[in-house]
Amino acid sequence: MEPAALRSLVEAGPSDAGTVVARLFRALREAVRSGRLEPGVVLPSSRRAAAALGVSRNSVNAAYELLRAEGLVAVDGRRAPVVARVEHIDDPVGGAGEGPALSARGRTQCRDLRARLYAHPSGRFRPGAPDEPLFPRDVWARALRRAARTTLGPMRAYDDYSGAPVLRRALAQHLRRERGLLVAPDELVVVASAQAGLSLLATCLCDPGETVLVEEPGYLGARAAFENAGLRVAPLPVDDAGADIEAAQARTGARIAYVTPSNQYPLCTRMSPPRRAALIAWARSARATIVEDDYDGEFHWRGQEAGAMQPLAPDAVVYLGSAAKSLLPALRVGWMVAPRPLAGALAHAVRNAGCAANVHAQLALAELIESGAWKLHLRRVTRTYETRARVLTEAIRAAAGDRVEVALPPGGLQLAVRMGSLADEAAAVAGLGAAGWAVARLSGFCTGEEPVAGLLVSFAEADGPRARAFAAALGRALGIRGETG
Amino acid sequence: MEPAALRSLVEAGPSDAGTVVARLFRALREAVRSGRLEPGVVLPSSRRAAAALGVSRNSVNAAYELLRAEGLVAVDGRRAPVVARVEHIDDPVGGAGEGPALSARGRTQCRDLRARLYAHPSGRFRPGAPDEPLFPRDVWARALRRAARTTLGPMRAYDDYSGAPVLRRALAQHLRRERGLLVAPDELVVVASAQAGLSLLATCLCDPGETVLVEEPGYLGARAAFENAGLRVAPLPVDDAGADIEAAQARTGARIAYVTPSNQYPLCTRMSPPRRAALIAWARSARATIVEDDYDGEFHWRGQEAGAMQPLAPDAVVYLGSAAKSLLPALRVGWMVAPRPLAGALAHAVRNAGCAANVHAQLALAELIESGAWKLHLRRVTRTYETRARVLTEAIRAAAGDRVEVALPPGGLQLAVRMGSLADEAAAVAGLGAAGWAVARLSGFCTGEEPVAGLLVSFAEADGPRARAFAAALGRALGIRGETG
Repeated sequence: MEPAALRSLVEAGPSDAGTVVARLFRALREAVRSGRLEPGVVLPSSRRAAAALGVSRNSVNAAYELLRAEGLVAVDGRRAPVVARVEHIDDPVGGAGEGPALSARGRTQCRDLRARLYAHPSGRFRPGAPDEPLFPRDVWARALRRAARTTLGPMRAYDDYSGAPVLRRALAQHLRRERGLLVAPDELVVVASAQAGLSLLATCLCDPGETVLVEEPGYLGARAAFENAGLRVAPLPVDDAGADIEAAQARTGARIAYVTPSNQYPLCTRMSPPRRAALIAWARSARATIVEDDYDGEFHWRGQEAGAMQPLAPDAVVYLGSAAKSLLPALRVGWMVAPRPLAGALAHAVRNAGCAANVHAQLALAELIESGAWKLHLRRVTRTYETRARVLTEAIRAAAGDRVEVALPPGGLQLAVRMGSLADEAAAVAGLGAAGWAVARLSGFCTGEEPVAGLLVSFAEADGPRARAFAAALGRALGIRGETG
Repeated sequence: MEPAALRSLVEAGPSDAGTVVARLFRALREAVRSGRLEPGVVLPSSRRAAAALGVSRNSVNAAYELLRAEGLVAVDGRRAPVVARVEHIDDPVGGAGEGPALSARGRTQCRDLRARLYAHPSGRFRPGAPDEPLFPRDVWARALRRAARTTLGPMRAYDDYSGAPVLRRALAQHLRRERGLLVAPDELVVVASAQAGLSLLATCLCDPGETVLVEEPGYLGARAAFENAGLRVAPLPVDDAGADIEAAQARTGARIAYVTPSNQYPLCTRMSPPRRAALIAWARSARATIVEDDYDGEFHWRGQEAGAMQPLAPDAVVYLGSAAKSLLPALRVGWMVAPRPLAGALAHAVRNAGCAANVHAQLALAELIESGAWKLHLRRVTRTYETRARVLTEAIRAAAGDRVEVALPPGGLQLAVRMGSLADEAAAVAGLGAAGWAVARLSGFCTGEEPVAGLLVSFAEADGPRARAFAAALGRALGIRGETG
């Protein structure tokens, strides 16, 4: 084979194949595989090939060695390589093959739990995310800029996986003052998200096959974290007084009870003091852990007296929070509050799992807390969201009050619209989905045979016109005639 | 009991106990537990208590209900609560108890793997972290500021867990051009760290009990990720030509081979083309996955022709990279390159595990790549690190050349100093540790019976004076007399 022919071969090959070595190797491999280069053809010497291709001899030799190691060419001493006789080459490089397959466990890890919740997942009013225009972008931009110019020292690398000390100090003080927590900075572990915290608690507190109780209906992310850790998830029934440990059939032997006591997800109710006390008494006697997910604890507007559960039993509760609802999920800053020995151990787990939070976001949040800007921001968004919740609640009552039950939630970003039947739920989800609204079906949060029917609706973006448009669409979806029929 | 006495009790209780409900509950609980409040004592009515304490009746009632649910007071209709007769209350709230215990699995998840590597882990020259003064802080600060002011839309929340589209586009182009990868934006998944990527691959590609091959000696973080996923880690022997799949006794049935072909960690050698081809041939026939950790691929200064392994077999390789070495570990931005179907599945796993990367860091990195600032930065740090590597290599040779073997690495941030015996290694680690140098022992990266002896030394901060100070300390630790003895 002449060097010029080799050059044509490479030039005709895929131009995206990266380095010279990879391009040459892939062009020749494909030529042998397709029969274009027949057994016995002598390739140019590396010196001549290098000259023709305008590359180094090292590169040509590397490509030839790759071909030789795959048995596609034979090399005899210092002579030029000869194309070998090969039965067949199974697979074109990067060809039809699908690539690595998921394991059985992998199919669980990679499932999309939320698919069953939505008819139109990317529509308006999707539960979970705050209203972007409320994000204090200028304050955050300035804080980030200062953070980036800070000398990080040990924080730049791998020394302390509990989180930036300045954030843990600021956050501990904030949580003590605003949520009543009993927490010192070394009882806080900062992570990339509350979801990462749930994943760590699932693997660190439980062995495979053990049971955890999750509110029913309940947050799918928690269920995913526990199931992905190989745990058995059993229902912790919820009514209007919150999770009821006495009604949980699997409570004996359960290692964790996962609850959202301040604003039950998705029913938007608050756990009563006796239910809290009963849950704590159970956890103490069962030596189980209460995982308190206070996902939107920073902006509640009523029923605040009770505060979080953690100060009632700091020995039995691990508390989770994050900046996802108060600022933005995409910041990926969450935190866990745990008794000191556990917090210290969890920091190592954060390192081993690789789920620490970005340092500049940590420093920026610390600055916002310390300057008081976060508190001002929280007050502002709480007022806004309370107004929107009222507006949406009233619009829904006006449009469909006889077919649904809707109560003003204690806070947060979403409200539950209860319905009398799954048929109504299905009609509402389909009709609203077709009209571009991303409501979630309440039954999707249930695992049992008697699911709650209704919708989880975000009011994060529900100003007056949008609230009325939504309510009108809900009425139409339920077949209710408007007043001006 | 008079309301005033109740007030004294609360005021004498812990002042840090958060909300009124928590303080009242904890003060009364402690008083009953210690016997200070005897059975039969009648507490003030909620109205009188609220007036005395200056709080709402709701708060007092909540605290009384918590006490009642724990059986500490009896309530008869609307009368004031009476302290009950209780045998004993096990545990003071937040008292001596250690809190939740780790499970058996949890003890593995939370172990500190690296403890055995160092005599002085927080000393100078610790391997792994780049030199902070080289971080382009002003460029990064400006990019972050612009990122924070960008309207995020769907990126703000939970819609796409593959990573910011703009970063995936920029990164795919960069990896194609600079590392020769075959990658489209939708074959990239951005994660909080390469370590998070390893954890996900361990759980998504393997079932518990399956075998993975890890280079021996090899990166402890990879071993941790695989062991934490319940996998059996078997050695993939490494020599100066890199990992040798033919020498891996457990290769039959192994699901993953983890390699660092471009700069073996910790030996700082480069895998030869025939070894690469043999590994690929094995992976294809075994239907196994090669996990290529290209942890410092952005700044190599020699032997670049071969590029990454991924373009030789994009169907069998999952490629990992991160900004940890080129920018800072604390940014928590890493990436995986995987065939399209796997990449799509892994994005769901990122969501379920909660290990996505901060959005502003993603946007800032995208901007740096697109503006060319990253390439300039990489060129600058590569030159600097090459100089430092040469200076340190020569200083070590001058100080201890007859007792150690040290070669200029192909790139990166650290070099291996081989020694003739574990006794020399121990003397060097102890002596250097006592003098404040955080070298890692090479034997600590081994699991077998014939560990490699020597040191892994970072040259990230090794300017001339520091390099000579280190070399002199190494000479002293090994008992070598200086020239001016």
